[in-house]
Amino acid sequence: MADPKIRLGIIGLGAQGGYYAGFLAAGKVGNTVLAAICDTDESKRAVADGYGVPFHTDYLALLDSGDVDAVVTTVPHYLHPQMAIDALVRGVHVLVEKPAGVYTGQVRKLLDTAAAHPELTTAIMFNQRTNALYRDLRALVAGGTLGKVRHTSWIITTWWRPQGYYDQSHWRATWGGEGGGVLVNQAPHQLDLWQWICGIPTSVFAKLAFGFQRDIAVEDEVTAVVDFGGGATGTFITCTHDLPGTDRLEILLDQGKIVVEDSQRVTVTRLSAPERELSERMDMSDVMRIFTGGADTSDLMTTTTTTYESAWSDQHPAVIENFSAHILDGTPLIAPVDDGIHGVRLANAIHLSGWTGREVAITDFDEASYLVELNKRITAEGTFAVREEN
Amino acid sequence: MADPKIRLGIIGLGAQGGYYAGFLAAGKVGNTVLAAICDTDESKRAVADGYGVPFHTDYLALLDSGDVDAVVTTVPHYLHPQMAIDALVRGVHVLVEKPAGVYTGQVRKLLDTAAAHPELTTAIMFNQRTNALYRDLRALVAGGTLGKVRHTSWIITTWWRPQGYYDQSHWRATWGGEGGGVLVNQAPHQLDLWQWICGIPTSVFAKLAFGFQRDIAVEDEVTAVVDFGGGATGTFITCTHDLPGTDRLEILLDQGKIVVEDSQRVTVTRLSAPERELSERMDMSDVMRIFTGGADTSDLMTTTTTTYESAWSDQHPAVIENFSAHILDGTPLIAPVDDGIHGVRLANAIHLSGWTGREVAITDFDEASYLVELNKRITAEGTFAVREEN
Repeated sequence: MADPKIRLGIIGLGAQGGYYAGFLAAGKVGNTVLAAICDTDESKRAVADGYGVPFHTDYLALLDSGDVDAVVTTVPHYLHPQMAIDALVRGVHVLVEKPAGVYTGQVRKLLDTAAAHPELTTAIMFNQRTNALYRDLRALVAGGTLGKVRHTSWIITTWWRPQGYYDQSHWRATWGGEGGGVLVNQAPHQLDLWQWICGIPTSVFAKLAFGFQRDIAVEDEVTAVVDFGGGATGTFITCTHDLPGTDRLEILLDQGKIVVEDSQRVTVTRLSAPERELSERMDMSDVMRIFTGGADTSDLMTTTTTTYESAWSDQHPAVIENFSAHILDGTPLIAPVDDGIHGVRLANAIHLSGWTGREVAITDFDEASYLVELNKRITAEGTFAVREEN
Repeated sequence: MADPKIRLGIIGLGAQGGYYAGFLAAGKVGNTVLAAICDTDESKRAVADGYGVPFHTDYLALLDSGDVDAVVTTVPHYLHPQMAIDALVRGVHVLVEKPAGVYTGQVRKLLDTAAAHPELTTAIMFNQRTNALYRDLRALVAGGTLGKVRHTSWIITTWWRPQGYYDQSHWRATWGGEGGGVLVNQAPHQLDLWQWICGIPTSVFAKLAFGFQRDIAVEDEVTAVVDFGGGATGTFITCTHDLPGTDRLEILLDQGKIVVEDSQRVTVTRLSAPERELSERMDMSDVMRIFTGGADTSDLMTTTTTTYESAWSDQHPAVIENFSAHILDGTPLIAPVDDGIHGVRLANAIHLSGWTGREVAITDFDEASYLVELNKRITAEGTFAVREEN
């Protein structure tokens, strides 16, 4: 008897949904089959016909059809939480596209529903978590041999987008249609990886520039400083107008340091003892020895550099395979949906800090104020309806 | 007839003053001779005797002796402005050791006095400005071919200091004796170079940690985000507990990018047109071409890397030579004293932001509030007298 396969429905056949449909139909995910497609655009029916799967224009009809065990929500960000909730209450597993939502209020509702349905699998498409480099990095930091994080900086500006990218859809890079710019669309991967590896900050102060180098309403430049508590801090810098961009992550810890360049090369420096112990033991002649170069410092530290092969094309199939495996046999999830709120909250807090000019708490984040401020911008834009304030 | 030489007196024969005396006596500065030494410690007289120059324990006596044309103030930071003022009113040229002072109020008094004596030369020891790398960088940015600065980040944590360094003097790393930590002692070089190259920020928000990894009262970890106005931002990160540390400066401009590693390697990317023009002209297929690698992008950008030989030992003699040349023949100064206030003001604003948790204006900096807050910390410390509030 053949191994069981999860019947997956795709809700939203835009660029991303079309990509998933293609590799699923090509059999790239061993434990999952493409089972149905939904799109509000009737003209997409031809694509479903080509794949020989049912087509719906109403996603609730797809969920009620009995044709699918699970769905993935490749639709505009605002719609992710409600669609996922609608699936869960119908007994359908959900893989939520990133980000989990635009504002934490709507994501919390999704998490509450997911928690009420432990028999169902609810995961999120953090495909970059499948990158062996970041998996190893998380294991290294969590393992504790390098001690606690003291500081971390990520400059991630390899998200260059031309004006034509923004002009291709009327909802893109709007407050009402997309809910933000680089923080909501491009950087969610790094907002997730950063917190996955380094922990959740307690507060943030940010400088944002809106329509700085592109004709858009939302942020295209972000400079944020976060506080992890206990003296540990970090900076997160992103934009969509740096050609060709920088991708450099640095993590300083109590007993060593990690530098990642281009998401490919990892340089790890391991101190022979906790830095504070070395500080107690050494004097300024040691400082000269370290900084004048040439001297052997292997008694103090060792450094190794590892280069990873990146394989972007395997990432999304790997997340879907893991999602289906969790449904089938309980394989641990790469990205449980609960993790989805961290990136949304940090993005929301960065927005709120940029709008108010004040440091914003992430612990006990003021999500009501966030939504009020977001709705002000949606109203000023005048194109989309404001979002529900609870 | 021999070329005229400036007779230079050294006020303060600690580590730095001793170093200057040594290379001056060795004839390393062609247009300057060591002419007198002052130190409050009578036991240093033997050093002056060794060099065959007059010795004073009172710097005013040295200034009044007629033995010197100029002095350099290698004394604790708080003393720099008053000593320089005392020299100027006596008709003696001054090379002020960095930083120009601890708080902007005292530096302004010095600048006022210097402005009232245009016939005298007043300069500051920003020795790293003699580094050809930073001179070339300043010329490149000021030249304008790369356009305006959009963002800049400097991680400068190669200032590792062991606990023993802090324990060697009772005034070191105290509020009353030194006026701060890494911002006042180690980072003034970069606070100067950064603003010399990228411009003066209008405001700053900073996270500071005081005695984070060392048993000291003052800051040993700084994470600051600055606003240059018009959407341009920057981050400045420094600490004294990163072994072996990072020195990486990045400057993103309208038509290119500069990355400096280890104050030695400069990588300059020049775009073939202003980035915004390329954005208007390109589409997502170009993005794929850029980011999938392998494709020829030389029509869009060219990149060159230059490695500089650093020669730390030439820097201080070069500043003294330039200072004396300015006195002798009006050679333009590498570092006029007026430039000294920028680094002090930025350091003060970073302190004030860290203390108050708020963003702090640099334009129209509130120097009165700074001094009030500084004096609170000096009072709490209980070792030194508070500083004059005007």
